[in-house]
Amino acid sequence: VSSRAGIVVTGTEVLTGRVSDRNGPWLAEQLRLLGVDVAQVIVVGDRRADLAAALSFLARSNVDLVVTSGGLGPTADDLTAEVVAEFQHRLMEVDEALHVRIAGIVQRLSAGRGWTLDPEATAHSNRKQANVPAGAHALEPVGTAPGLVVPPPPGSSSPLIVVLPGPPRELQPMWLSAVSDPLVTDALAGREEIRQRTIRLWGTPESELAAVLRENESRFTELEITTCLREGELEIVTRYHPQAENEYQDMHATIGQAFAATAFSLDGRTIDEIVADALTESASTIATAESCTGGLLASRLSAQPGASAYLLGGLVTYANSAKIDLAEVPAELIGQFGAVSEEVATAMADGARNRFGAEIGIGISGVAGPTGGTEAKPVGLVQLCLSRKGQTVAQRVQLPGDRIDVRTRAVMIAMHMIRQAFNGG
Amino acid sequence: VSSRAGIVVTGTEVLTGRVSDRNGPWLAEQLRLLGVDVAQVIVVGDRRADLAAALSFLARSNVDLVVTSGGLGPTADDLTAEVVAEFQHRLMEVDEALHVRIAGIVQRLSAGRGWTLDPEATAHSNRKQANVPAGAHALEPVGTAPGLVVPPPPGSSSPLIVVLPGPPRELQPMWLSAVSDPLVTDALAGREEIRQRTIRLWGTPESELAAVLRENESRFTELEITTCLREGELEIVTRYHPQAENEYQDMHATIGQAFAATAFSLDGRTIDEIVADALTESASTIATAESCTGGLLASRLSAQPGASAYLLGGLVTYANSAKIDLAEVPAELIGQFGAVSEEVATAMADGARNRFGAEIGIGISGVAGPTGGTEAKPVGLVQLCLSRKGQTVAQRVQLPGDRIDVRTRAVMIAMHMIRQAFNGG
Repeated sequence: VSSRAGIVVTGTEVLTGRVSDRNGPWLAEQLRLLGVDVAQVIVVGDRRADLAAALSFLARSNVDLVVTSGGLGPTADDLTAEVVAEFQHRLMEVDEALHVRIAGIVQRLSAGRGWTLDPEATAHSNRKQANVPAGAHALEPVGTAPGLVVPPPPGSSSPLIVVLPGPPRELQPMWLSAVSDPLVTDALAGREEIRQRTIRLWGTPESELAAVLRENESRFTELEITTCLREGELEIVTRYHPQAENEYQDMHATIGQAFAATAFSLDGRTIDEIVADALTESASTIATAESCTGGLLASRLSAQPGASAYLLGGLVTYANSAKIDLAEVPAELIGQFGAVSEEVATAMADGARNRFGAEIGIGISGVAGPTGGTEAKPVGLVQLCLSRKGQTVAQRVQLPGDRIDVRTRAVMIAMHMIRQAFNGG
Repeated sequence: VSSRAGIVVTGTEVLTGRVSDRNGPWLAEQLRLLGVDVAQVIVVGDRRADLAAALSFLARSNVDLVVTSGGLGPTADDLTAEVVAEFQHRLMEVDEALHVRIAGIVQRLSAGRGWTLDPEATAHSNRKQANVPAGAHALEPVGTAPGLVVPPPPGSSSPLIVVLPGPPRELQPMWLSAVSDPLVTDALAGREEIRQRTIRLWGTPESELAAVLRENESRFTELEITTCLREGELEIVTRYHPQAENEYQDMHATIGQAFAATAFSLDGRTIDEIVADALTESASTIATAESCTGGLLASRLSAQPGASAYLLGGLVTYANSAKIDLAEVPAELIGQFGAVSEEVATAMADGARNRFGAEIGIGISGVAGPTGGTEAKPVGLVQLCLSRKGQTVAQRVQLPGDRIDVRTRAVMIAMHMIRQAFNGG
């Protein structure tokens, strides 16, 4: 049997989309690794009643554990600790030893930043953050706020609640202390591993995949299969308990055979990891020249740890003069074919390769919009080129969506062009 | 009185964090503009029972409207339409005219991509997507899936449910048809505008802001004030009904005076917009040379529509040889001071300026990690420089967090250096 958990993400800034939530998904994944199934992630604003309603809903859904993130800061809208205490029928009291430790942390942090703090404001916020529900365990602060493990009132069937701070770099290390807390260990006893495996396809329509899954559905009864199309990749994620491992292996082989040409990742690696591995293993070097994507491909390649082994650098040649001077694109090419053309993208790729002394060059030129489109070259038209010694591969695509979509999708296509260059290219 | 709405985002890929949700926040903002207050965003996996539970919870929370996103695709795990129909006690029936239109769309789309589709698989998925609950209004497909407006059963106090597809570029245009549907207009009648205003500070600790808000709290009783610290910016968002406009103006002036030196945005503009406006209005040009941020600053500057007016281009000089050859950094500087030094960052900024003929140059060099740190230059150390004619501003920071955090925060600091260059710099 697996345990079930619910996650509550608090913060009006998350609810209204000013900040995108990284905690819900991260916690869901950590819980899965522990064999805990997450039923719901609920995002609520910094409002007492809405937070309380979310806790009640999860308690009624029979979860064994609730994890909350956010609302532990020093301002008045930070009220998670208080609302959780009330929900579990526990009074708040200042933990004096914790109070002293928090004051020490705040002192060190502000000294490091060269800030002079108003003593009264600081004392007030330290005291607020040292408030702990009676009978709860405090988790040592990573930033300035402690976390909390708050048990239900005696005799109640309410779930255990783990209260964590909002900033991911405080929440993540604190989660490690939380899972070794005896109250948490108890609540999660008797759980069973949930496996999760991912297969990714590039170039198969979702309906074809649906047909193959339908034909075989009687063989895959113990698998929870979900599919999702994003930025052109079709992703198949399967969750199952260990006893269904054979069934999963059967499905894995079925998909691998049915879509041999498009199943580019059968081992869970992302396109970013596959490209990084291919470049590393072949000891190749790469350089970019980007126009409409403005550095997005270079920043994606350089996001991988260890990228300096293969990424020599990149050019962002936004202005035509930069294409000519830096990417060595002959001015006549731009005059004759326009900046968005196979000829110019190829010259950019060659220029990047030459400038950085790299083996592989990528050139991208396009119309990201919202303006700048013409009838012949509308918004969304992107010309890509990959060049290396003795080989040039060009691709011209018309991408849907807004400026962000066009740029993101163009970079995704470039990543797959790099991957394909290593597959018998 | 304002109406209240709940949002349900479906998709195991969102619940488990493989895709970050863009729809919940977008819908929350659209609803606010219509005077509809969003209480909760609930993320559920592609599971019948969990989706049904989320709908029941929102119905019990007395919302007037529920908006769902996702789960309208052709695969078996796409079950939103079915679950919503059952929740509203309505049978599913094929809309024959819609069926014909969907088949036409699929035909055109696949022809455009040069795909040959399996006719049986296609027919099955078209039929699935043309299923509509009896008495519901179908919203014309933007992709291949229609949306739905599904009323409660007669005599029930259950909310109206608007069912939208998951891909943001299908959901967003379809929302416009949804709000003009008579069932939706009825459900939202009698609503009152909710204003939302944002103030941003750079360099004020949250505790100092909390103190000022606390001192004045008796004057701001009708304002819903939330604060949030992210990537070093302190954001204050205030929501209120129009009758509290004077109270808001009072608060706006109070914050503006108390934090005159750090309140860089009193009109809601983001740092990205402020930098874009400053560069455009002064007709300045800019170029970048990035090492550890690998193109992230250039991609952020170029993300703004119209960036070509001021962004001439950028260099990603990951390898030292690229710093020397392309950014014109003297090799001796790297030998003497190391790549992460004020001297090299300044030479990079000057090199970018010179190479692109730009007025402003930015150089960034640092240790993003996870490896590459030393005792003298640990992971997180970043050296930034802004240079223009007759002026050089350097900043050396030690940033916390992982590779992603260090890169993101370094770019944020660079954005503020650019802003400050226009404030009497």
